Parts: sequence; C-alpha cells; structure tokens
Amino acid sequence: MTINLVCVGNLKEKFSKEAQAEYLKRLSAFCKVNVIELKEQNQLENPALIIEKEGEQILHNLKGFCVLCDIGSKQFSSEAFAERLSLLMQKTSVITFVVGGSFGVSEKVRSACNERISFSQMTFPHNLFRIMLLEQIYRAFTILNGKSYHK
Amino acid sequence: MTINLVCVGNLKEKFSKEAQAEYLKRLSAFCKVNVIELKEQNQLENPALIIEKEGEQILHNLKGFCVLCDIGSKQFSSEAFAERLSLLMQKTSVITFVVGGSFGVSEKVRSACNERISFSQMTFPHNLFRIMLLEQIYRAFTILNGKSYHK
Repeated sequence: MTINLVCVGNLKEKFSKEAQAEYLKRLSAFCKVNVIELKEQNQLENPALIIEKEGEQILHNLKGFCVLCDIGSKQFSSEAFAERLSLLMQKTSVITFVVGGSFGVSEKVRSACNERISFSQMTFPHNLFRIMLLEQIYRAFTILNGKSYHK
Repeated sequence: MTINLVCVGNLKEKFSKEAQAEYLKRLSAFCKVNVIELKEQNQLENPALIIEKEGEQILHNLKGFCVLCDIGSKQFSSEAFAERLSLLMQKTSVITFVVGGSFGVSEKVRSACNERISFSQMTFPHNLFRIMLLEQIYRAFTILNGKSYHK
C-alpha cells in the first residue's frame, strides 16, 4: 500500500519537521508514505493565478484514488475514516491525499479528485494540518490492526 | 486577559514541547497564557475511577469562564471562534479551556464548565490537540486584531 501526500508548501519550523518524521516512522510499519511538497506560488500577486499555477503542479502528481482535504466537505470520525481507508485499500494500492495552498485549490484539482474530506470547520496552518493528517492515517492503521493506540 | 489551559497529561515528545513554546511566545503579544498540566491517573485500572480522580484535579483548577473541549459538541469556524472569544473577553478577564484525559471527563467537570466546544469529529492525541487549541487561540487573536495571519 502506498499513500501519497501532495502538499503545497514546505515545512519550515523544526517542530513540524520532527513531528512529520515521527509519524512517517510510525507509519512505515503499515505502508509506504511519500510526501510530495510543491512550491507555493506566493510570489504571484493574483490569488486566482496562484491557485491555477499550484493546481498545475498538483494535477501532475495525482495518482491512484485521490482525496482532497477540503474544509467545507464531509467530516468523518476517526473510526469512520479508518473504515473508509480500509474499503479504498481493497480497491486500490495507491491513495493520494491533496493538501492545497493557503488560497485553496483550482476547480480542475477539485474535479480530478475522487473524494473530499474535512477534518474541522476551523482553518489550520498547512504545517499543522499535515501533522494532523499523518496522525489520522496512523490512527486509522492502528484501528484497522487492533492496536491499543486509539481509545 | 488571562487564558488558562487545564490539560490532563504532559507533553512528552520534543516536537510537542517546541510547538507549544512557539505558540506561547506568539500568544504573549496578546494575552497571558497559563498551561496547567494535571497528572494522568492511568495507574488506576478502572476508567470510571480515572475520570473521577482526574475530574477532582480539573475542578480544583477551574477559574473564570470555563470552556470544555469535547468531541461531540458544537463546532465553530475559526472566525466564529474568534468572535466568541471576543464576546467572552468583554465579560470576563479569565477564560479556562479544559482538555480532558484519554477517557474523557467526569459529569461534575461537564456541569462545572460554562460551555463546550468541538474542534473535529476526529479523535486527536492530547499533545497534538493542545497545539491545535493554542494555534486556534492565536489565530483568533490575529483575526480580532486584523493581522494578516488568517486567510
């Protein structure tokens, strides 16, 4: 099983990098995870252009079943998320999660993704959100494998 | 303005400590934040007893307007959370957020809190949740002060 995280923006803070490394290490027991960091196009002034340019890069990296992390969409409990992942893994060997930039993603990206998922009604910074996503994927695998991590 | 975080369990991982330190530093521009870490009672075998013992410690530390972080309760957008905080700050100079242990909190704690708030339908580990909470409080202050952090 391969899980790709396609993320706009790189991790700057040391704590984000360390947290990511920790969850990648834990996840390595269950699957292969690739983190694909795309360059933020914030040098451009026009948000529409930023979304368009970032979208091109995202589209280039969509593989397998693609899940867009999108604040306005459906929320799952951790158990329901684990169940959804389990179902998907019966159908595909590659799942790609897309974490857009601070201006969101283009309509093309939205259409190209197979599913949308929301973690919260709140807006989180992309570095923290990436850790939250990695943690939930790790949690999902512990749930599916009957480990004691999740209560 | 004083904001208290009453949390069951301490931060073990270096990255959690660094992330907390970073957000506390940023928050110091806006308010005084006290993080009160209470001991997890996991040496006890009975979850009901754990909740009871942890509850006693929590009750001892409730000051001002108390907000319980509770997975099943009402969610806010970051903007609505900021607005809510702003309203509360007109009425009180101390707000206490309560983050319970892994078995939840006692009915006494639930009754003693003035409000409940949920960040997500998902379950997050207490260390990561604490960072999410600090980040949203920081984000709220940047929204209320017209800073460019929130998009």
